[in-house]
Amino acid sequence: MTTESPQDRLERAKEASRATARLTSDEKGRALEGIAVALEENAETIIAANARDIENGRQNGIGDALIDRLRLDGTRVSALASAVREIAALHDPVGQVIGGHRMPNGVNLEQVRVPFGVVGAIYEARPNVTVDIAALALRSGNASVLRGGSAARESNTVLVQVMRDALESAGITPEAVQTVDDFGRDGAKALMHGRGLIDVLVPRGSAALIETVVTESTVPVIETGAGNVHIVLDESAPDDWAREIVVNAKVQRPSVCNAVETVLVLRQAAPRLVPLVASALQSEGVAVHGDDMVVGLMSNVIPATEEDWATEYLSLDVAMKVVDTLDDALAHIRKYSTGHTESIVTTDSRNAERFLAEVDSAVVMANASTRFTDGSEFGFGAEVGISTQKLHARGPMGLSELTSTKWLARGAGQTRG
Amino acid sequence: MTTESPQDRLERAKEASRATARLTSDEKGRALEGIAVALEENAETIIAANARDIENGRQNGIGDALIDRLRLDGTRVSALASAVREIAALHDPVGQVIGGHRMPNGVNLEQVRVPFGVVGAIYEARPNVTVDIAALALRSGNASVLRGGSAARESNTVLVQVMRDALESAGITPEAVQTVDDFGRDGAKALMHGRGLIDVLVPRGSAALIETVVTESTVPVIETGAGNVHIVLDESAPDDWAREIVVNAKVQRPSVCNAVETVLVLRQAAPRLVPLVASALQSEGVAVHGDDMVVGLMSNVIPATEEDWATEYLSLDVAMKVVDTLDDALAHIRKYSTGHTESIVTTDSRNAERFLAEVDSAVVMANASTRFTDGSEFGFGAEVGISTQKLHARGPMGLSELTSTKWLARGAGQTRG
Repeated sequence: MTTESPQDRLERAKEASRATARLTSDEKGRALEGIAVALEENAETIIAANARDIENGRQNGIGDALIDRLRLDGTRVSALASAVREIAALHDPVGQVIGGHRMPNGVNLEQVRVPFGVVGAIYEARPNVTVDIAALALRSGNASVLRGGSAARESNTVLVQVMRDALESAGITPEAVQTVDDFGRDGAKALMHGRGLIDVLVPRGSAALIETVVTESTVPVIETGAGNVHIVLDESAPDDWAREIVVNAKVQRPSVCNAVETVLVLRQAAPRLVPLVASALQSEGVAVHGDDMVVGLMSNVIPATEEDWATEYLSLDVAMKVVDTLDDALAHIRKYSTGHTESIVTTDSRNAERFLAEVDSAVVMANASTRFTDGSEFGFGAEVGISTQKLHARGPMGLSELTSTKWLARGAGQTRG
Repeated sequence: MTTESPQDRLERAKEASRATARLTSDEKGRALEGIAVALEENAETIIAANARDIENGRQNGIGDALIDRLRLDGTRVSALASAVREIAALHDPVGQVIGGHRMPNGVNLEQVRVPFGVVGAIYEARPNVTVDIAALALRSGNASVLRGGSAARESNTVLVQVMRDALESAGITPEAVQTVDDFGRDGAKALMHGRGLIDVLVPRGSAALIETVVTESTVPVIETGAGNVHIVLDESAPDDWAREIVVNAKVQRPSVCNAVETVLVLRQAAPRLVPLVASALQSEGVAVHGDDMVVGLMSNVIPATEEDWATEYLSLDVAMKVVDTLDDALAHIRKYSTGHTESIVTTDSRNAERFLAEVDSAVVMANASTRFTDGSEFGFGAEVGISTQKLHARGPMGLSELTSTKWLARGAGQTRG
């Protein structure tokens, strides 16, 4: 590996992508099953490599939360294999005819889904992403080049090797799955500047990582991620819906991007809903950061600062603010939202429809928990990520979002007049 | 205008895009008709401004071809107005429901087309693009920020002012159409780095301009353009199809991106097809640049160099090369194609299907002229451009490609279990 450059790997992935693009759905399914079996069979080796990452991590003083995300044990390796089998069971989007017609001159025009070619991914210390992205890419006929965080380097090296060996056993070029982890920062740079070799690059991780990838890349990027998610409660919001939706959106899984971060309460509803909702949150262990009005209506509220409105806590914290009108709520959302998910709780259909129409986010809800913004909840089976950009994909991404399209024209000598 | 920054204009466009997004199809149609009428009524002012550009251009020594593209006369101003009316007649994609279902818990999920918000465009000295992009953007509910070439600055200033006045008369904020031409290079920079303000940026023009925009931009870009287009003739290609398709693809309009630039002839067919096709091209005034084999088979052929294979001539020149096998033709295309359009002439269905499957271009044809790669030929009515990237849009772009999507969820208090 010493004389190789990251560029060499990208080129081999590109070459391999010509082969993966032509695999049948059955062939890809068998290869994925082979990968699942290989992960199970190599569990010990994987766990041993992971133990070295964890040991290194402890020596480097990384926190317990990160250690937990990094850790692979028997159960988690089985979960990796199960995830691959779930991906294998997904409908293959490649070859789907999504448009077309016969031109007046008789040329038959067809728009079909084709693999992108090479999918790049830059992510942080989660070894499960290594397997997920490689499997999702392969299911949709793509090769993949992976750049995980250095904290998971030993784990990723073994996982990639296990997957490559399984591909080879299935008669597929192992070059279809590549890692550039061993090149460190140069590996990420090669991905971000791999014009003509990387067809789409997906960053997954912190807002800072995503910002870096979006800003530095010269290849097309799908921006995923950050969710500074809002729920608005208007004067018509029923007590139970307001309480249940906000508590569910905050508490059910606070560490994920679709968890609510700020609750905006319309002034007329504030005396009724602020104490009701804030106390329900507090009884679930949530720290409420409120503006002056909220502080005045409820005890044990931490005074909120400007920073709170912009913060994606990803923890048992929530910001709460009283606004005069729906216009003010919409203006607040425009200013602070990351365009992921917002919801309104209301029984006033004018407010609901106005909110749905005017909020410029990937998913806009009325009377439902923001936690529903999720690939499996949306019926996609597996999650490639949640796009917060408007180009190509917006919101939860399924396998189709890992494909491009191509026009096929079949004629009989036609020329243009 | 002196105290303004390009950033101010982008912000006003963003603000205006909230209003244009909510316009009904009828309102947008009336506004476009108002723009068409205003262009006709202000033809004299437009032509006078254009005359200043042409005078400046002559003083700066720009070539006749550029002067011709730049020139606006009465007929061309009428054509601008007609183009706007054609765009007004297009089906409005905004609000189209393209997916959705009822979730098992009863939440109603809908995926609808929404405007991007603000469409940016960077292009060269074609004043018609100024009107085209503004009208296409408005038809699809977007605001636009335009940066045309400095050679057309006087024309563009007047055209934008005419359109803004027409918007105002139609009761629509004129801020929905902006130019940053007067900021020169800083205007282009503001567009390319307008994160959060420019939702998609479309470069139109030379390969160098497109490369700059793709490389420098931190906003999402749709790469349009360059077409180093190939036609392959195999041993089964009928004389008439081979001759007619190649001649049509080269001669009918040599200056556009879907014109053929290189013809690859399989060795077995070369003695029959090279003289036939090359002489047909030569009799239409085309200069044939050939490899040694072609030079040996045909007189008056200019010996081709490596550079010819990579050149998008956009003129009455064509490169011609003899290849041993279809594999070699595919390898040549992989190496030199810009991924725009390629066609094979063959009656061997195995070759046709292999070519359609393996060539990784936006449009792949069998037995049809590459000149058909065109928005109006594809039935889209108007052309936003031809995308040569794989993200979001590939091939001729219609109005739908100027929209994003948004998920709407309507519930009745549902929470996630």
